[in-house]
Amino acid sequence: MPRADGRNADQLRPVSIETDTQRHPAGSALVRFGDTRVLCAASHEEGAPRFRERRGWVTGEYAMLPGATDTRSRRERNGPGGRSKEIERLIGRSLRAVVDLDSLPDVTLTVDCDVLDADGGTRTAAITGGWVALARAMRRHGFESALTGQIAAISVGIVDGQPVLDLPYEEDHRADVDMNIVATADGRLVEVQGTAEGAAFGRSELDELLDLAVAGCEELFVIQRAAVDAEPSA
Amino acid sequence: MPRADGRNADQLRPVSIETDTQRHPAGSALVRFGDTRVLCAASHEEGAPRFRERRGWVTGEYAMLPGATDTRSRRERNGPGGRSKEIERLIGRSLRAVVDLDSLPDVTLTVDCDVLDADGGTRTAAITGGWVALARAMRRHGFESALTGQIAAISVGIVDGQPVLDLPYEEDHRADVDMNIVATADGRLVEVQGTAEGAAFGRSELDELLDLAVAGCEELFVIQRAAVDAEPSA
Amino acid sequence: MPRADGRNADQLRPVSIETDTQRHPAGSALVRFGDTRVLCAASHEEGAPRFRERRGWVTGEYAMLPGATDTRSRRERNGPGGRSKEIERLIGRSLRAVVDLDSLPDVTLTVDCDVLDADGGTRTAAITGGWVALARAMRRHGFESALTGQIAAISVGIVDGQPVLDLPYEEDHRADVDMNIVATADGRLVEVQGTAEGAAFGRSELDELLDLAVAGCEELFVIQRAAVDAEPSA
Amino acid sequence: MPRADGRNADQLRPVSIETDTQRHPAGSALVRFGDTRVLCAASHEEGAPRFRERRGWVTGEYAMLPGATDTRSRRERNGPGGRSKEIERLIGRSLRAVVDLDSLPDVTLTVDCDVLDADGGTRTAAITGGWVALARAMRRHGFESALTGQIAAISVGIVDGQPVLDLPYEEDHRADVDMNIVATADGRLVEVQGTAEGAAFGRSELDELLDLAVAGCEELFVIQRAAVDAEPSA
Amino acid sequence: MPRADGRNADQLRPVSIETDTQRHPAGSALVRFGDTRVLCAASHEEGAPRFRERRGWVTGEYAMLPGATDTRSRRERNGPGGRSKEIERLIGRSLRAVVDLDSLPDVTLTVDCDVLDADGGTRTAAITGGWVALARAMRRHGFESALTGQIAAISVGIVDGQPVLDLPYEEDHRADVDMNIVATADGRLVEVQGTAEGAAFGRSELDELLDLAVAGCEELFVIQRAAVDAEPSA
Amino acid sequence: MPRADGRNADQLRPVSIETDTQRHPAGSALVRFGDTRVLCAASHEEGAPRFRERRGWVTGEYAMLPGATDTRSRRERNGPGGRSKEIERLIGRSLRAVVDLDSLPDVTLTVDCDVLDADGGTRTAAITGGWVALARAMRRHGFESALTGQIAAISVGIVDGQPVLDLPYEEDHRADVDMNIVATADGRLVEVQGTAEGAAFGRSELDELLDLAVAGCEELFVIQRAAVDAEPSA
Repeated sequence: MPRADGRNADQLRPVSIETDTQRHPAGSALVRFGDTRVLCAASHEEGAPRFRERRGWVTGEYAMLPGATDTRSRRERNGPGGRSKEIERLIGRSLRAVVDLDSLPDVTLTVDCDVLDADGGTRTAAITGGWVALARAMRRHGFESALTGQIAAISVGIVDGQPVLDLPYEEDHRADVDMNIVATADGRLVEVQGTAEGAAFGRSELDELLDLAVAGCEELFVIQRAAVDAEPSA
Repeated sequence: MPRADGRNADQLRPVSIETDTQRHPAGSALVRFGDTRVLCAASHEEGAPRFRERRGWVTGEYAMLPGATDTRSRRERNGPGGRSKEIERLIGRSLRAVVDLDSLPDVTLTVDCDVLDADGGTRTAAITGGWVALARAMRRHGFESALTGQIAAISVGIVDGQPVLDLPYEEDHRADVDMNIVATADGRLVEVQGTAEGAAFGRSELDELLDLAVAGCEELFVIQRAAVDAEPSA
Repeated sequence: MPRADGRNADQLRPVSIETDTQRHPAGSALVRFGDTRVLCAASHEEGAPRFRERRGWVTGEYAMLPGATDTRSRRERNGPGGRSKEIERLIGRSLRAVVDLDSLPDVTLTVDCDVLDADGGTRTAAITGGWVALARAMRRHGFESALTGQIAAISVGIVDGQPVLDLPYEEDHRADVDMNIVATADGRLVEVQGTAEGAAFGRSELDELLDLAVAGCEELFVIQRAAVDAEPSA
Repeated sequence: MPRADGRNADQLRPVSIETDTQRHPAGSALVRFGDTRVLCAASHEEGAPRFRERRGWVTGEYAMLPGATDTRSRRERNGPGGRSKEIERLIGRSLRAVVDLDSLPDVTLTVDCDVLDADGGTRTAAITGGWVALARAMRRHGFESALTGQIAAISVGIVDGQPVLDLPYEEDHRADVDMNIVATADGRLVEVQGTAEGAAFGRSELDELLDLAVAGCEELFVIQRAAVDAEPSA
Repeated sequence: MPRADGRNADQLRPVSIETDTQRHPAGSALVRFGDTRVLCAASHEEGAPRFRERRGWVTGEYAMLPGATDTRSRRERNGPGGRSKEIERLIGRSLRAVVDLDSLPDVTLTVDCDVLDADGGTRTAAITGGWVALARAMRRHGFESALTGQIAAISVGIVDGQPVLDLPYEEDHRADVDMNIVATADGRLVEVQGTAEGAAFGRSELDELLDLAVAGCEELFVIQRAAVDAEPSA
Repeated sequence: MPRADGRNADQLRPVSIETDTQRHPAGSALVRFGDTRVLCAASHEEGAPRFRERRGWVTGEYAMLPGATDTRSRRERNGPGGRSKEIERLIGRSLRAVVDLDSLPDVTLTVDCDVLDADGGTRTAAITGGWVALARAMRRHGFESALTGQIAAISVGIVDGQPVLDLPYEEDHRADVDMNIVATADGRLVEVQGTAEGAAFGRSELDELLDLAVAGCEELFVIQRAAVDAEPSA
């Protein structure tokens, strides 16, 4: 069964990653998955949180611009909401999985992910683009040796009874199962977050979803590497 | 290899669920997994959130008493922290997976989960005990037909290279992989949340962890059913 | 005139104090006055507030579990409300009246009072149970010599024109006068807080209420001493 | 033993109440007790809190100007602190004791008490002056019949072993016992709040303090009545 | 004396306005003044603030992305700071100067201004680009007749003793006088905000600055009109 | 055309400045412009904000008492509102224009401006009175040499088509143009903030307004100097 936007079940939306999209941050990247666009910026600050005892830290922040959604969404000016905090924790944890924090000096690398346009998959786009911003920032600051791996993230789900890759909002909001996967370029998993919306899922369905996701990440790794190696803009 | 507390890899800690532990809530349960104790209370309020348009809603709240942890933890009086919000979203989503919200009247059922003693696995204990409190409250209010299934939750992880079931704090904080599973009594999955701490995990390790978790939930379903059917205290 | 629950005017509800009810705090106690139950935990932290200049401090916190009241009460997640702050100040002040702060080292002892079930008299139960938790914690930490006295607290009031001891919610909410007393075991007063609800009260009524309260505290001192001296649980 | 400021033990500081000190409020009064000055304003707003179900309400607010204290005090811009909330609850409760809320229409009368200069006894000055502002506002709005009595408040305490009336800051901060009394003009008590700071107090000391306070209030009632009946300023 | 970036005293930085830069908002524009970039989005919501009594309202919000500044700036998650609120009030007031609110229906038009890169003049860029976003949104919703005029804004200042137009950050932070002007296309002034930093300024200097600013706005009006009339992107 | 209160277009309301109106602050002043009254207090605290690196700082705070306005205004207990923050920034910036911060020691001078009665022009009254409080506080602390000038502030506007000086509320709320000016005693400008409400204004109108304001400030400088030199009250 063809999908609403004409893609095959195992096909990504058009993905691109443009680098150096902001002037000041050490690394920045604008990542697109179809109509979803997220601006990722990795900044370097002296000093890590106290519990790190003078070794490095990597963290993430996530927000939506008010105009990113169909109906204007409010700025989270009384603290991030539950959804934003959960996504921020996921972004930070995922990025830290490929950084050797103990070989960083006493710095905090913050990866800000600001959604310009939302059409599903904003958190996985943020991780995928965030890794590029982080890798470029670490290279610029000479922390490259502390970057121990490459990660990408993608959503999968069961829509109309069929496992599909990279769900836009239209599929996402009516999916029976919704899953986000963060994987490493050497074929292992860093995060698996699957949620049944309505109908629970069986083990074989889980396996199909994981197969789709891992194959999708393979394509993302290639795009990320090209972006990381792009010449810095003047 | 025996575990630090002498259990086998596939063995639960001693689990018990005591009901009617608070006077006022329609349903309440005190659940223990070893040294972890969580007080769960399901309360009934008129009116559901506006987006439900006069049909029912089920939600969860989660907090730790300051004395629940080794070092006194602060009350979250400036709003729940990121971890608490994430757990609350998980509890609510899991419980809603087995409630037919549209056949509820215009009410909100809130399941409060307050941790009295924390020794790992507080969120899965909260879901497991919370389902019992919810089921008893729904029975008392005559909403029993809207309860469509039974769920339980358990943690699994890879500790010292070995997949193990039901991690206490001592194992949890040094695990390479940490996973929480919410499953239904008819053998399907509602939530799978797996996180690599340090080392990523392969597909075969994921399968082993899921096998352990599903078997653990089978034991929990039996304990839950006995608790739900316990006579109300006078 | 017999009271609604059959007690005499000068009779306490059934009171019990169970110790070591939480694993981690240095001292803990579950105190019951009839259907009111409060979990008290005394924890030890390094460092006192700055104004103490490296000498010790004792403070109290108070909260209700959402399910403690007839209708679910909201968690105070935007800071404690006026009533909670007032009660916390009373608890801290009362406990400090029997501690020689200057002979403590640079530590803070926090007594957390969490109401599991509320049926009137939660603040006086908190002080009565809190003293037991504090005394046990001070003994465990070797601060016993800084504990200079024993305090207990009880409510009295004028209900249906009659002075009565230890008001449950049913009496409390229709009392003409409501008074809380904190007394020491050597027969002196630490706090007297009396409030007319509607009708003001005369001097002779005040005297009758104080007589009732002091006699009630005598009974509480005996129960407290037994609890403080109970064997630690394994 | 004469007091530091030369007063007798049973002597008030110079007290004055000036009315119509602000242009807009329905009733206003500037009250002085020695070097303590509090500006009290009673304002009228349509609508009472929801729990009043369309009958009237009286409430109080209390704040210190930053320059009111020896060292500049911070504005309470993140909500009132514990002390302010406790005082506000006392002011509101005291004033409501002499208003028949049910015979008010659906309005809220708010009495704002802003301390211009603090030298001890600000809460009792606020109640004493607040009653004048309230009485004038009720008269102006034609609610006079709902004012059922007259109240005043004063502090007493034990300083250097001697019971004394109306403590300035210098006495207050070293008092062994500190007590605030709210009394009615017909000789009854509305609030009794006594606190031992260090040494607890016996029943006979309590009696002496109450005698002093009641006599002090008699003087205040006369000053209040003159102020209530002062001609409105043009 | 040539300026640091080679411009003449009366010369704007390169200015461009790109439209339809976000998918969802009714009108959007990305405005650049040299290295300053602001994303402006005008959204339409049903309902105006209550004080408008069912007639329309126009308001603005302003924020900086964390990576917009040289050193990462914190998200304003505890409410907008003083500077942001002041800028938001200026944006809203300026836009309302050219909208006939009473001929709008009961809607709120919100113009969100998010700074992607900051290099001085972000508030004036926000107003200049915000007017374009607003004009396009009003046209799309058929509110065009309520748009009564065209406004643009620019900064001027005295740097090294010389009045100059359109200050980048490097000039702004060392200027003796800093002024922002909002002008209408028919040659009148809507806002004049001038501040001496260090040295005060005389009347003749004020006149020179106003001349520069009005001439700069003339250039901006031309660029704005081209942007408003650009074809909507597919 | 005569104004509603009978004044000429270029006439100030009756202005007075009374000093030492609070006991504790180093300098204090009660300033009146007609029915507007603002209490200004300058306090001295050890330590300046961190960015000042151990040199001095001057800042301002501004608030309205709830009874200062026609309808009771709420206390800003969740942080100052947008208007208050904007006014506080203006007060601080204006006062700093006449203080040589680098010749102050490591102190913060805070000028608190609390509006007792509001009838238009509260922010300009606050600056005018605040300068007197600051000058007296600096003299008392021996910082007089760091005070480099004298400032006063006044409002002007276009009402009924006519430029007028010192607008009361009745004129302010219906003015077409509203402008606040801060000027120095040597005839220069520190702040010019002009806003069109409805109709924009031309350059010649701006000139007329500035002429009025500068002449008004001349009168204020004389009144300020007398107040600064008043004998300290006992």
